[in-house]
Amino acid sequence: MGGAREGMTRRQVLVGAGAATAALGVSSLVTSKAHATGKWDHTADVVVVGTGVGSCTAAITAHENGDRVVMVEKAPILGGTSAKSAGVLWIPDNFTLRTRGINDRKEDCLKFLARYSHPERYNPTEPNLGLSARAYALLEAFYDNASAAIDRLRQAGALNVAEWRMFALDRSATDYLDHVPENKVPAGRALGPVKDDGSVGFGVDLMEQLGNAVRKRGIPILLGHRAVRLVMDDARRVVGIEAESAGEVVSIRARKAAIFATGGYVHNAEFVENYQRNRIYGSCAMPWATGDFINIAGAAGARMGNMSGAWRTQIVLEEALQSPKLAGGVFFPPGDSMVQVNRYGMRAVNEKRNYNDRTEAHGIFDSSQAEFPNHLLFMIYDERTADAFAGAYPLPAKPTGASHVLHADTLEGLAAVLQQRLMEVAPRTGGCLLAPDFGGNLKKTIARFNGFARSGKDDEFGRGAAAYDREWQPVFSPMRAGSGWPANDAPNATMCPFRDQGPYYAIILAAGALDTNGGPMIDASARVLDTTDKPIAGLYGTGNCIASPSRLAYWGAGCTLGLSLTFGYIAATAAHLEPRGSD
Amino acid sequence: MGGAREGMTRRQVLVGAGAATAALGVSSLVTSKAHATGKWDHTADVVVVGTGVGSCTAAITAHENGDRVVMVEKAPILGGTSAKSAGVLWIPDNFTLRTRGINDRKEDCLKFLARYSHPERYNPTEPNLGLSARAYALLEAFYDNASAAIDRLRQAGALNVAEWRMFALDRSATDYLDHVPENKVPAGRALGPVKDDGSVGFGVDLMEQLGNAVRKRGIPILLGHRAVRLVMDDARRVVGIEAESAGEVVSIRARKAAIFATGGYVHNAEFVENYQRNRIYGSCAMPWATGDFINIAGAAGARMGNMSGAWRTQIVLEEALQSPKLAGGVFFPPGDSMVQVNRYGMRAVNEKRNYNDRTEAHGIFDSSQAEFPNHLLFMIYDERTADAFAGAYPLPAKPTGASHVLHADTLEGLAAVLQQRLMEVAPRTGGCLLAPDFGGNLKKTIARFNGFARSGKDDEFGRGAAAYDREWQPVFSPMRAGSGWPANDAPNATMCPFRDQGPYYAIILAAGALDTNGGPMIDASARVLDTTDKPIAGLYGTGNCIASPSRLAYWGAGCTLGLSLTFGYIAATAAHLEPRGSD
Repeated sequence: MGGAREGMTRRQVLVGAGAATAALGVSSLVTSKAHATGKWDHTADVVVVGTGVGSCTAAITAHENGDRVVMVEKAPILGGTSAKSAGVLWIPDNFTLRTRGINDRKEDCLKFLARYSHPERYNPTEPNLGLSARAYALLEAFYDNASAAIDRLRQAGALNVAEWRMFALDRSATDYLDHVPENKVPAGRALGPVKDDGSVGFGVDLMEQLGNAVRKRGIPILLGHRAVRLVMDDARRVVGIEAESAGEVVSIRARKAAIFATGGYVHNAEFVENYQRNRIYGSCAMPWATGDFINIAGAAGARMGNMSGAWRTQIVLEEALQSPKLAGGVFFPPGDSMVQVNRYGMRAVNEKRNYNDRTEAHGIFDSSQAEFPNHLLFMIYDERTADAFAGAYPLPAKPTGASHVLHADTLEGLAAVLQQRLMEVAPRTGGCLLAPDFGGNLKKTIARFNGFARSGKDDEFGRGAAAYDREWQPVFSPMRAGSGWPANDAPNATMCPFRDQGPYYAIILAAGALDTNGGPMIDASARVLDTTDKPIAGLYGTGNCIASPSRLAYWGAGCTLGLSLTFGYIAATAAHLEPRGSD
Repeated sequence: MGGAREGMTRRQVLVGAGAATAALGVSSLVTSKAHATGKWDHTADVVVVGTGVGSCTAAITAHENGDRVVMVEKAPILGGTSAKSAGVLWIPDNFTLRTRGINDRKEDCLKFLARYSHPERYNPTEPNLGLSARAYALLEAFYDNASAAIDRLRQAGALNVAEWRMFALDRSATDYLDHVPENKVPAGRALGPVKDDGSVGFGVDLMEQLGNAVRKRGIPILLGHRAVRLVMDDARRVVGIEAESAGEVVSIRARKAAIFATGGYVHNAEFVENYQRNRIYGSCAMPWATGDFINIAGAAGARMGNMSGAWRTQIVLEEALQSPKLAGGVFFPPGDSMVQVNRYGMRAVNEKRNYNDRTEAHGIFDSSQAEFPNHLLFMIYDERTADAFAGAYPLPAKPTGASHVLHADTLEGLAAVLQQRLMEVAPRTGGCLLAPDFGGNLKKTIARFNGFARSGKDDEFGRGAAAYDREWQPVFSPMRAGSGWPANDAPNATMCPFRDQGPYYAIILAAGALDTNGGPMIDASARVLDTTDKPIAGLYGTGNCIASPSRLAYWGAGCTLGLSLTFGYIAATAAHLEPRGSD
């Protein structure tokens, strides 16, 4: 078959999944300015891409190890999405827990991580708790290194953190899944940056500390440089990267390793459409979160994981339609005389659940109608909640003081203005409108909810049953002092019966994200894996740009930053042991 | 920063997302026997990988166009999963519809495809019906070419098909979402292979026809050859492939193009864990469906899409645990006095919905408990269903004649034996057990269902409301002639009240799949796209190995094969126009 053995020229080369297979003629080298000149523009032992918490941790750790570091940042400013965050770090077995005499045992903590991240595989009697060896190893690496990473940064004078307590409440932060038996330390794992005045600050404070530590060490930061590709040797070792800056190609030699700790892809509309199961209407990630590492590492044969994953939160629809690059999200829907209903007027979720798990409700598929009935949800509340909780986002400071707040004297009227608004935005929402029975169902839903509020027990979704629901409520949704409205004297502080009398209010909520968390897969040393599960030599990753070890779960406040910091530390530690290539 | 401009050697080369960037030194060429010898083992204009319906269609079409074809098949036999299928082809606007005077208009049909595949974006008043231009173009290409592809094969004498009618019922096949206004031709789009005796056959008959057409044309079929990598020239054009056979590397020159129509990744446990949102316990795909094309095309920089997608079906848990390579699936749960409940004893889905949409219920996430409450579902039925519908899979020919059937005299007893079985298999199911309130809830669930059955209206899930539910019931679940049990005289044929008296039965159902349907993305010409959305020259794909144009939806019986055939035809037609490279 195929007849004579015909010639394969030297210009026809192999592209394969294994080592030493992807190949092209050397003519492609001339695409690079650096290659054309035969020179590197910058040289480091460890090149760190991104300047968020994972990047800065990697850079500082590498510097402390004696490695020469260059940082590369696409944005004109340092800090990434970390600088926009609350600045919380979720760190098991951290020094503040130990100080308080709380023993966050490895065996217990791993059960909690496994149970929350892999609920459909978790089985405590099985090897690796029922998880794959690789998935388990990532959780174990996190537990084993998280506290050590913090301590290393503290010892280096790069980070000053204390227990992060619940803002005005001054109590330990409750985890996002506190009410499962696997969580033996359901509060207190969160740390936050200590400001000069001794108070605990936000992400901007965290990144100011870490940014100062980077600068103090003289680590170069190439701002406005977008990493575009890897440079590899013919053993498929990453030996540098190329970035673009002001239209020029800049080459940066990485004698030991390149560590990527860049953003997810939430602001890349194409990726969101191709990889997310459901729509994401907007995100509070920095606008530079366009998933560049997926293409960069993908071209080197990286294996992708958790590609449909995200750190989810509900967002206000109209704000996202105006700009998908948001200031924040609906992290905790305020009020107590409040429900969220779908286009059929039915409740769809425990309104007080944490933002990540709550937002999953938008993606529930109705097999009978082959649709997503909760695609948009409608937060419905009465005059008391509108006024007594005014100013708790997304409630404006005055009940009608924002265009995203719809209101009417009656529930019938509210349905009408809601439908009108939905028709206005229909071109951008897949034509999502209220179903004909919305109004009738809404009345029944509120009547039923009022019964739950009076009894203190939500028979539908268990609102207020977990400590999380109750304890975060006064943090994000304190009753306004001197509002003049009666306090909620019902048995469950998260639920208060609706008033019989209008006006009533509605806000349209859609699915959003802090960022996505899928991408190239790493191993327990933060090494990026190729499609044959071998590490790509010299390439490391952490943060939102890689397949998150936490998968489905948001373990507690600071899960994103705690993970990114820890694997940034792991990456720099492992990179230090890499052979140092020649210049 | 970075100091002096340091040298980059010629052995350090670029790996990037764009054209002409992925690169290695030429030393990698020696990994190939063919490269070492400078010879190709086989030469064709068009190399077709796989031998299912998409592959055979591509091969025959290419041959008819005058292109020289070689086929490459990993298995020792021809036919792929197509040969195990029902052999149905879902083809809009096909010749049998036209013969019957049914006008399956493009404008209407595209609305149906878009509505079902992209329910959260579909908007008929928007450009591209609310879809991305690329997603719309794929649906349009399918509509525009499906009927032409069939006609071309018929004219070539390669395929003899007729309207596929519902087995014994002899009526047009109802689509899997017939009850939405967008579906203007809700029945009759299915075709099936005509056997020598004039009857309509199955997949084995379809593939016998197509296999004979391939062999009759003298197209070489390299059985037992596993494609492992692409060969590209330095303009990044695919110029051939390499396969492995009996430990040897075999190189096959593709002067025009390589067309992959191989399997999904359902039998690759690692990929299933990394890409699927939920567990898949087993599949009726051929065991060779390990997603090889993902790595092969990924190494060439292909963009991946729909990676969490699958053609889903429920399966019997114990059968899948015994071997995940299954004979079939629970395509239509038999019986009428039957419900499916979850570990809490609550119904979870319209039990009579099509297999793809129904199986989505297993993946519903409970935000409050951070778990998948429907991970396993339990099909509960009474003595009448067990006996009167005996033999309708998964019911054995005798009510207790299979080890996967659990039974007891009472519902309490049934819960006990079910729990016992769940404990036995717990090591492999993430420890899924019945909740303490299962038994009490099950009784209430059945009482409620009995009310629905008496009224004819399922207020929970709308069972029997759509024509699909009612019309496929007698196909897959005919009442056994002479069973002695009373016929169901309730107003809705899909629901019959449970008997008050035992014994009762249970079968454990889990999520499975026919195969996955994510992978490299194609354009409307079936060209594989790279991560910058440019086609990878000379590389085409169709079938389960690529990101399916149908995304979430299973349009009707034969959706998988109809799509694979159509894009196989499109691929060969486009490949014919590629420049023919030298030997």
